[in-house]
Amino acid sequence: MEYLKSDSVRLSEDERSVVIIDQTKLPGKTEYLTLSEADELFDAIKLLKVRGAPAIGIFAGYAVYVLSLGIETEDVSTFLVRIKEYAAFLDSSRPTAVNLSMATKRIVETAEEYKELPVAEIKEKIKSTAIAIHKEDIEMCRKISEYGLTLVKDGYNILTHCNAGPLATSRYGTGLGTLMLGKEKGYTFHAFCDETRPLLQGARLTSYELSKAGIDVTLICDNMAGFLMKQGKIDAVFVGCDRVAANGDTANKIGTSSLSVLAHYYNVPFYVFCPSTTIDFSAKSGADIEIEYREPEEIRSMFYERPMAPDVKCLNPAFDVTDGKLITAIITEKGICRYPYEKSLAELFLS
Amino acid sequence: MEYLKSDSVRLSEDERSVVIIDQTKLPGKTEYLTLSEADELFDAIKLLKVRGAPAIGIFAGYAVYVLSLGIETEDVSTFLVRIKEYAAFLDSSRPTAVNLSMATKRIVETAEEYKELPVAEIKEKIKSTAIAIHKEDIEMCRKISEYGLTLVKDGYNILTHCNAGPLATSRYGTGLGTLMLGKEKGYTFHAFCDETRPLLQGARLTSYELSKAGIDVTLICDNMAGFLMKQGKIDAVFVGCDRVAANGDTANKIGTSSLSVLAHYYNVPFYVFCPSTTIDFSAKSGADIEIEYREPEEIRSMFYERPMAPDVKCLNPAFDVTDGKLITAIITEKGICRYPYEKSLAELFLS
Repeated sequence: MEYLKSDSVRLSEDERSVVIIDQTKLPGKTEYLTLSEADELFDAIKLLKVRGAPAIGIFAGYAVYVLSLGIETEDVSTFLVRIKEYAAFLDSSRPTAVNLSMATKRIVETAEEYKELPVAEIKEKIKSTAIAIHKEDIEMCRKISEYGLTLVKDGYNILTHCNAGPLATSRYGTGLGTLMLGKEKGYTFHAFCDETRPLLQGARLTSYELSKAGIDVTLICDNMAGFLMKQGKIDAVFVGCDRVAANGDTANKIGTSSLSVLAHYYNVPFYVFCPSTTIDFSAKSGADIEIEYREPEEIRSMFYERPMAPDVKCLNPAFDVTDGKLITAIITEKGICRYPYEKSLAELFLS
Repeated sequence: MEYLKSDSVRLSEDERSVVIIDQTKLPGKTEYLTLSEADELFDAIKLLKVRGAPAIGIFAGYAVYVLSLGIETEDVSTFLVRIKEYAAFLDSSRPTAVNLSMATKRIVETAEEYKELPVAEIKEKIKSTAIAIHKEDIEMCRKISEYGLTLVKDGYNILTHCNAGPLATSRYGTGLGTLMLGKEKGYTFHAFCDETRPLLQGARLTSYELSKAGIDVTLICDNMAGFLMKQGKIDAVFVGCDRVAANGDTANKIGTSSLSVLAHYYNVPFYVFCPSTTIDFSAKSGADIEIEYREPEEIRSMFYERPMAPDVKCLNPAFDVTDGKLITAIITEKGICRYPYEKSLAELFLS
């Protein structure tokens, strides 16, 4: 367990709570939260205190475990009902990232698999699954980053959107993993980092993580990315993902799809970094992925010193879907997939 | 003069100062500034208290006139030297919008044209030219808006970027003029308005102007525009311009060029609204247009309650150049030009 203790999502020392860094406070404050109540665990996801599809998955695994400790019954079927209720409750916090429901589903399956055991032992099995989800994520991120390094050259200028670094995942990250691992191996990359309105994950989290890791980073506004591509200053676009459909259509932070169109137009490779936990083979295409719409206040006033447009209507989609055909490659922990993705993803994961 | 008194850039009642609405304070505060010193006139442009290419042109005309009043000499050649110094000083405040230098050049030419007259009379001629620039802008905006109405249908959903409304021009505006005039004539349009980072002209000014005019408006972040186009929710993109080269390449607020690529990809018409004062035939293409780079703090901390990324490097281009071939039409006060623009612009304005 020791090597899991430094991650930004983890079990507390007494193993009765989940500890996270409150990502809404970064980079101004590094504030740790110790959470064990259902409502506060739900809110941590809903309010983006923990965010990033893989990190939400890890968090959800630990969260159901922590909640299981509070279920005071020796009756296994009662216990299973309660576990499923908690899983469904956490699932309802955000709709788009598949890792959330994948993690809770796996926990529920673990509980059901061991339903012949006493409740206390089922809880131990749940803990093991939660830890496994975390450990596997670290391993996936490392492999994805190694594959990523085969796609770049030293000195590359890489454009990133939103945040797919250690905070959003574990250890290396997905979209940022190649940069992080590359840094360790002596590569010199330069990152351009979209600020990513409205919640500024790029400005607040990515630029912070990359700077901290000693990687040269320049922050830009979202509407400046195409300007740099047009000038030939971007060698590749790197993004993470929240859900990948069987045909490679990829839900990720709003703005990602537009970047893929710009990259296509300017002939810049566009790479999606994707742990297999983020692939949803039950979604045939992007049309099957629900897009989360968030509160207008995030656009009108959040982070601002005063409301910028106090009364105006806002539309605030949190994600969009990038067409598989605009993605140069999807990099997974098992290898690099290319278009057509129905075939390449299925070959790698379903055969 | 009476009908010029309601505009957001105008001569003061005593005609010794320029009055503007401080656009950096909108929509929170409607604060009028009365300016007559060279430094404060320069800063008003530099710090975007007055902004929008045509509005800067109108402002610059009045500014040189107001400064001329302070030149205490009866010697015409001394007077001309001083007028040219003031013109050059104001020109150096911002590089991209051509209306600024066009206006100051016209004032200098007026002064030279009447150099046989006494200084006091030359000052009157300068005033007449400044007022003419203003009146002509109103007339151009109206004509452009009438041409714009021939390109749309009632009920259109129109995407706008930055601000090209009455504040940026005079009366109707350029990019917003069709919406404003259409409203008067009983059309029902819906506008989606990009917030336009980093300075939020869309959130602060466009959404305010359109709401005030009773036009249905929805604010979005810049990275959401492509999402709406992909869903077929945008019928046309309307933008103003800061400088149009002879081949139709168009400098406008950063992010405009990317919108043109997205519109092209999703088959959405992309219209540039352009008074002839914004066409620079001396620029053969966009390569001849200087792009202004502004301070990193505009991205890092301006408008924010705290610096979002206190130490990170930022790149802050204020404009980009949209390739003429991605522009469906350029709408001027003399008519609607289409690609190839070397030909259509020259036919309308140079023959």
